[in-house]
Amino acid sequence: MPVFYLTRKEHFNAAHKLFNPSWSKEKNDEVFGKCANENWHGHNFELFVTVKGEVNPDTGFVIDAKQLSRIIKDRVVEVLDHKNLNLDVPFMAGKLCSIENLTYEIWQQLTPFLPKGVALHCIKLVETPRIFVEYFGE
Amino acid sequence: MPVFYLTRKEHFNAAHKLFNPSWSKEKNDEVFGKCANENWHGHNFELFVTVKGEVNPDTGFVIDAKQLSRIIKDRVVEVLDHKNLNLDVPFMAGKLCSIENLTYEIWQQLTPFLPKGVALHCIKLVETPRIFVEYFGE
Amino acid sequence: MPVFYLTRKEHFNAAHKLFNPSWSKEKNDEVFGKCANENWHGHNFELFVTVKGEVNPDTGFVIDAKQLSRIIKDRVVEVLDHKNLNLDVPFMAGKLCSIENLTYEIWQQLTPFLPKGVALHCIKLVETPRIFVEYFGE
Amino acid sequence: MPVFYLTRKEHFNAAHKLFNPSWSKEKNDEVFGKCANENWHGHNFELFVTVKGEVNPDTGFVIDAKQLSRIIKDRVVEVLDHKNLNLDVPFMAGKLCSIENLTYEIWQQLTPFLPKGVALHCIKLVETPRIFVEYFGE
Amino acid sequence: MPVFYLTRKEHFNAAHKLFNPSWSKEKNDEVFGKCANENWHGHNFELFVTVKGEVNPDTGFVIDAKQLSRIIKDRVVEVLDHKNLNLDVPFMAGKLCSIENLTYEIWQQLTPFLPKGVALHCIKLVETPRIFVEYFGE
Amino acid sequence: MPVFYLTRKEHFNAAHKLFNPSWSKEKNDEVFGKCANENWHGHNFELFVTVKGEVNPDTGFVIDAKQLSRIIKDRVVEVLDHKNLNLDVPFMAGKLCSIENLTYEIWQQLTPFLPKGVALHCIKLVETPRIFVEYFGE
Repeated sequence: MPVFYLTRKEHFNAAHKLFNPSWSKEKNDEVFGKCANENWHGHNFELFVTVKGEVNPDTGFVIDAKQLSRIIKDRVVEVLDHKNLNLDVPFMAGKLCSIENLTYEIWQQLTPFLPKGVALHCIKLVETPRIFVEYFGE
Repeated sequence: MPVFYLTRKEHFNAAHKLFNPSWSKEKNDEVFGKCANENWHGHNFELFVTVKGEVNPDTGFVIDAKQLSRIIKDRVVEVLDHKNLNLDVPFMAGKLCSIENLTYEIWQQLTPFLPKGVALHCIKLVETPRIFVEYFGE
Repeated sequence: MPVFYLTRKEHFNAAHKLFNPSWSKEKNDEVFGKCANENWHGHNFELFVTVKGEVNPDTGFVIDAKQLSRIIKDRVVEVLDHKNLNLDVPFMAGKLCSIENLTYEIWQQLTPFLPKGVALHCIKLVETPRIFVEYFGE
Repeated sequence: MPVFYLTRKEHFNAAHKLFNPSWSKEKNDEVFGKCANENWHGHNFELFVTVKGEVNPDTGFVIDAKQLSRIIKDRVVEVLDHKNLNLDVPFMAGKLCSIENLTYEIWQQLTPFLPKGVALHCIKLVETPRIFVEYFGE
Repeated sequence: MPVFYLTRKEHFNAAHKLFNPSWSKEKNDEVFGKCANENWHGHNFELFVTVKGEVNPDTGFVIDAKQLSRIIKDRVVEVLDHKNLNLDVPFMAGKLCSIENLTYEIWQQLTPFLPKGVALHCIKLVETPRIFVEYFGE
Repeated sequence: MPVFYLTRKEHFNAAHKLFNPSWSKEKNDEVFGKCANENWHGHNFELFVTVKGEVNPDTGFVIDAKQLSRIIKDRVVEVLDHKNLNLDVPFMAGKLCSIENLTYEIWQQLTPFLPKGVALHCIKLVETPRIFVEYFGE
């Protein structure tokens, strides 16, 4: 049976800072530069979630894109949108707020809620028009 | 010999609906929502065709992008552009008109016409700025 | 008092055809080409609505972008999205379904519902990545 | 002499919140919704600065785009990038942090520093892919 | 009668350099920097042509977008695409090859060929994702 | 340990031509068409560099995106930007100037300079909005 990869794009706006609490302010400024601003900065994040699976012969779908959107919104976007990623997000508590760590945690949030036969393939998170990270669960 | 992946983007505009003829109108409305509108809706589809191969040492090309564009236009875009995907397209006759099924059929249309040494790698079809499907022939 | 122009972007997907009922099929095909396909074609339309006005000193807003979005969705997007523009849309009944005529009718739908002090400035409708029309109410 | 409009695009990332200090928290939440989150949120802002003028016959330029970029970076981007717009920006102190008010203040920052013969025409600030504001100095 | 603004986007790829022949090489390098490289550089130019007019009641069109595209391709794109703007283009001969001067000359090329009742409104030329020029014929 | 793929986008503008010196001018025109124009043409190239690796637990980074940008600018963008790819670039000397060959040579330029633990994964080079090539080092 042929396998297809379906991608749904969502977005959220959030504040964050890059800051290692075991370092001094000077060390944080040296390593993270402007991203360590203690008063925060922020981004329009674009989130691409790719799932893979065979097609349901009754619908022609791997998964209904509206159902996938609903899962992403309930589990991830509602938790991150218009939030402070360092302060407001339970699943980022105590973690360095890089997009690498965010993609990893988004994967953990979504994977238990996908229907049977639909596997998570990739979380891609675009932080600026010039920087993005992909995580494939490996 | 190094292997390169060349992608050519084309587009077409078309009408379609999502509709399973073995179901009642109510069941179609329930499963496909607005996409089941019996009077059709439509999209600007973006089609990305990726081929792979070694470079011809005389040209530096895997394949001339204009030649690839010609093949895609002749075999796919001419058949789909400004058409009703459910009614006007021979290779979609009797099939559910999802983008999963479309990518699969586009693969079948293109693969016999690629020159020797150039393999089809991916058909990517973008239905809206938020939804796309990829098929890798597996 | 300074005047600001706020633009909100929405989108809808729809089917249509270009067809003048007072002409023969041959004349329609000659003038409108592929756009006259009797089985319809379709687009992802992007709609940019620009309003102008002074800022409310309590909010810093000309108008809350969410309120503007609500008005556009209620009056225009709900009526056009996943529809056949020739068959399903009351305000296009009996009119040629060009984007020029659509921008004019969208203007008429929106202008009565804007709050006091907020004037409609421009309706911009993007039909394909290469074609768009703007109407300024004149 | 013909007049040309030259636009230079820059960008900055920043945190902000929408909050009227003369209102209660409840009233702020009611009016500004998620944008009033006391822990901030943020955006990738895109800034388009348009100037107008005649062409210098020795260069063919209204203004060297690199010189215009330098002025925008020195006067605006350096002050806003990776900052908290409510806390860190002198020219926004005590003002409601809407993009309407931001475009107005950016105009004031830039206009004294343009060379003779080059007039500021428009400040356009894109907050999300769906919302932008333009200010023409009137 | 309402007036509409129709925009058609075309593109061309070309080489050029910025160079004033009445100056020394040193002066050209000082003023134009990397753009004065004597061995040329190049761009993917995006050209937006906006016309204005009333709608033809038989078609709903200001002008058929395909007809407008044909005029732009015949008069401008054929002359500029895959060319050296300084060496190969008759209407740029002896002129400084800035985008300001290019928009002015493109206006002169197109305006005699528009049909009666259709007025040229704007030539917009995008040189890089961060720099564009508009000319309105004034 | 989970593995992440970080991509950094850079750009450069350059002139080039497609030309095989062992062929006659006629044969070059026949094979390469407008791309063989002896007076050159050019593009805005977009370069996407993807690296892979585990996260440094002190920073949350595979690699600091600014450090990666610095390496790409020093080794590649400085050498290619506002240059003639056939005449001005040491690492393209004597090679056919296709984007396939360019991605291969960019890979060779970058791979020795990545820090320990960070592997080059993909060089993607976008020549026009419709054509791009990817090279994965195999």
